[in-house]
Amino acid sequence: MFAEIITIGDEILIGQIVDTNSAWMAVELNKIGVKVKQITSISDDAEHIVNALDQAQQRADLILITGGLGPTKDDITKHTLAKYFNMPMRLDEVTLAHVKQFFEKLNRPMIESNVKQAEVPDGCTVIMNKNGTAPCMWFEHHGKIIVSMPGVPFEMKYLMEDQIIPRIKKAFQLPFIIHQTILTAGLGESFLAQQIEDIEESLPDHIKLAYLPKLGLVRLRLSASGFDELALQKEILIYTQKIVERVGQYVVLTEDVPFEKAIMNLMEENSLSLSVAESCTGGYLSHLFTQHPGSSTVFQGGAVTYSNELKQAVLGVKEETLLAFGAVSEQTANEMAKGAVNNFNTDYAIAITGIAGPGGGTAEKPVGTVWIAVANRNEVKAKVFQFANQRLQNIERSAMAALMMLFLKLKNDLKN
Amino acid sequence: MFAEIITIGDEILIGQIVDTNSAWMAVELNKIGVKVKQITSISDDAEHIVNALDQAQQRADLILITGGLGPTKDDITKHTLAKYFNMPMRLDEVTLAHVKQFFEKLNRPMIESNVKQAEVPDGCTVIMNKNGTAPCMWFEHHGKIIVSMPGVPFEMKYLMEDQIIPRIKKAFQLPFIIHQTILTAGLGESFLAQQIEDIEESLPDHIKLAYLPKLGLVRLRLSASGFDELALQKEILIYTQKIVERVGQYVVLTEDVPFEKAIMNLMEENSLSLSVAESCTGGYLSHLFTQHPGSSTVFQGGAVTYSNELKQAVLGVKEETLLAFGAVSEQTANEMAKGAVNNFNTDYAIAITGIAGPGGGTAEKPVGTVWIAVANRNEVKAKVFQFANQRLQNIERSAMAALMMLFLKLKNDLKN
Repeated sequence: MFAEIITIGDEILIGQIVDTNSAWMAVELNKIGVKVKQITSISDDAEHIVNALDQAQQRADLILITGGLGPTKDDITKHTLAKYFNMPMRLDEVTLAHVKQFFEKLNRPMIESNVKQAEVPDGCTVIMNKNGTAPCMWFEHHGKIIVSMPGVPFEMKYLMEDQIIPRIKKAFQLPFIIHQTILTAGLGESFLAQQIEDIEESLPDHIKLAYLPKLGLVRLRLSASGFDELALQKEILIYTQKIVERVGQYVVLTEDVPFEKAIMNLMEENSLSLSVAESCTGGYLSHLFTQHPGSSTVFQGGAVTYSNELKQAVLGVKEETLLAFGAVSEQTANEMAKGAVNNFNTDYAIAITGIAGPGGGTAEKPVGTVWIAVANRNEVKAKVFQFANQRLQNIERSAMAALMMLFLKLKNDLKN
Repeated sequence: MFAEIITIGDEILIGQIVDTNSAWMAVELNKIGVKVKQITSISDDAEHIVNALDQAQQRADLILITGGLGPTKDDITKHTLAKYFNMPMRLDEVTLAHVKQFFEKLNRPMIESNVKQAEVPDGCTVIMNKNGTAPCMWFEHHGKIIVSMPGVPFEMKYLMEDQIIPRIKKAFQLPFIIHQTILTAGLGESFLAQQIEDIEESLPDHIKLAYLPKLGLVRLRLSASGFDELALQKEILIYTQKIVERVGQYVVLTEDVPFEKAIMNLMEENSLSLSVAESCTGGYLSHLFTQHPGSSTVFQGGAVTYSNELKQAVLGVKEETLLAFGAVSEQTANEMAKGAVNNFNTDYAIAITGIAGPGGGTAEKPVGTVWIAVANRNEVKAKVFQFANQRLQNIERSAMAALMMLFLKLKNDLKN
């Protein structure tokens, strides 16, 4: 079964925002066995919306529309849909009550355009948007389903997870899709593919293998689709075991959770605590951990020590070390990690110090040079990495390399 | 003049990668007065590519295609274009020499599929891709221009900047496009719209106003297009001034830079330094600052103090304060901010402590309760916010509210 995603609004077309909604939706749709045939971004223009809708229905059975539902004049999606489906507008009392409550809670007065948020085409199913004032609308039309949602990411995501996905599952007879992820590190995509070529070739048609490389890691994903869930689970397990047997030394995880979350799970099971000392990653690694609910069980906190003064004051890095070896050095990384373990009183600590760029590089230590140290209460070890010129990419790669070092250290320590 | 962007490949449709290329291209096209009418993502499917091309030419004069030019079997863009334009394939000697040199440099053997990279439809203009092996192809067809580029971001960006943009400027008579952004805070989108309704209605056809709300802020953007650059600049200035006059008390900035960057610019101009003490935002605010090159001039660092122990040890928050008022309180926020100013020796500090959720809420302090304090060397002031239930959104909103508090404090301090 095919779906199409249509995003409405100028923000994407002028490049002001990157369309992250569509990728998120595509992932969610894939999980329930719906393939996305096309993603289309168009402006708030009635004729263009109508054309996009016509064309999408030639390719797909399900059309998910986001955006253009705001209270201002340039938001014309709702009226265009009403006209398209030949439905008059009506005031939806449930939505109106919700909008009123919404403004009461914010302690703000309502104006005319806010009341209009409660108007809907008479004939669609109205789905309450508890995180905003624009309701979600579900249309059925000549055997096709068209859903209009707000474009605000957290409103759309809540609606998709809580309302739209369950309704799609009911509306279409969808196969089960089972995914199994194998996270690997240390071997490039093409070399991995070479090693498991025969396993890949032996896969039946309803099982696919995808290679998803990212920041030095390669995620292998097996996806099986079919109508017998139990049989699929057994089958996918067999192929997973075959791959793990073959390239086991490169396998990090066979869970489909973010790497940092898997590390925190492992540490929580073993009652271990963690802190970080970040220089060039500037808080990004801390954010990776703390974005997950419950992270405070493991993650105690840390320091973002951009300046040398803070490296000394907060982490106890010695002035002599900074003078003799510089802020980006094995010695400084080691002292930062040890300082974090001691000063923050945690079982483990990660320290990252490097030159994220674009400025600050030297011939000896070019942009992209990053020292990472991992310490436990007894020992510390650092490693140097040479990344590239892109600041944000260097920040992300440094964090990923640090996670890998911590993970390997943990696995080793817990084995003993 | 309208352009369309077509991205070819499954990665975007399965949500494996977010399409950042299109946003980047849209920005570059806008700068030279080309409007993007539609962005379309499709799979490596010949029929679908042909349909997308047909439809795009009904809407646009310039079609930019990325992706599907790799050496593997699933990359069919080049042959589909050759067939579409009815051109036979030929071996391009210049490209072949480049590909050979490319592999020599990498010290890797060339295989059959690499030689095929040098084959092009006979009739297009071949544009050298110095960062990769797939050449860029420029087609002219019934008055339309169709350009096919590789999807690898840095290959595409180099080609656009160095080759495609200059050629587009030559091929079309393009208007100037001038944007002016007005960042506002404290008034919702619909209320803003109401206040400046008459100004918006008085705008001439070639000037557009867009409302771009995000995390409690609303960005207003005026866009003017025309052939007399100087006249446009004058005109857009007049309307900007009108809006600023009307809603001046809500206007934060009239620059088009990220808010945190604008704050750092202001602080740098006044030789002021900054540190942060983050609890519930867990490093996100630090990351916001440090993602920008040159941030170290202003941003000295900070602490992510998730645990009470760290709040005491690193920031000097008193145990009595934590016991009497709790970690999420005005008193703790104030002590965190003062502690950061003192311990990190900076002119200003921001402290954030709250309950990001989904767990940890109580009847008295529900999820979403966040105390934010801003301190300078002499004084500190805290404010409480009540956000919602979504963890990531609470983190982002807290950071945004903190930036706003710091900005207002700075403006006030610098006035005196």
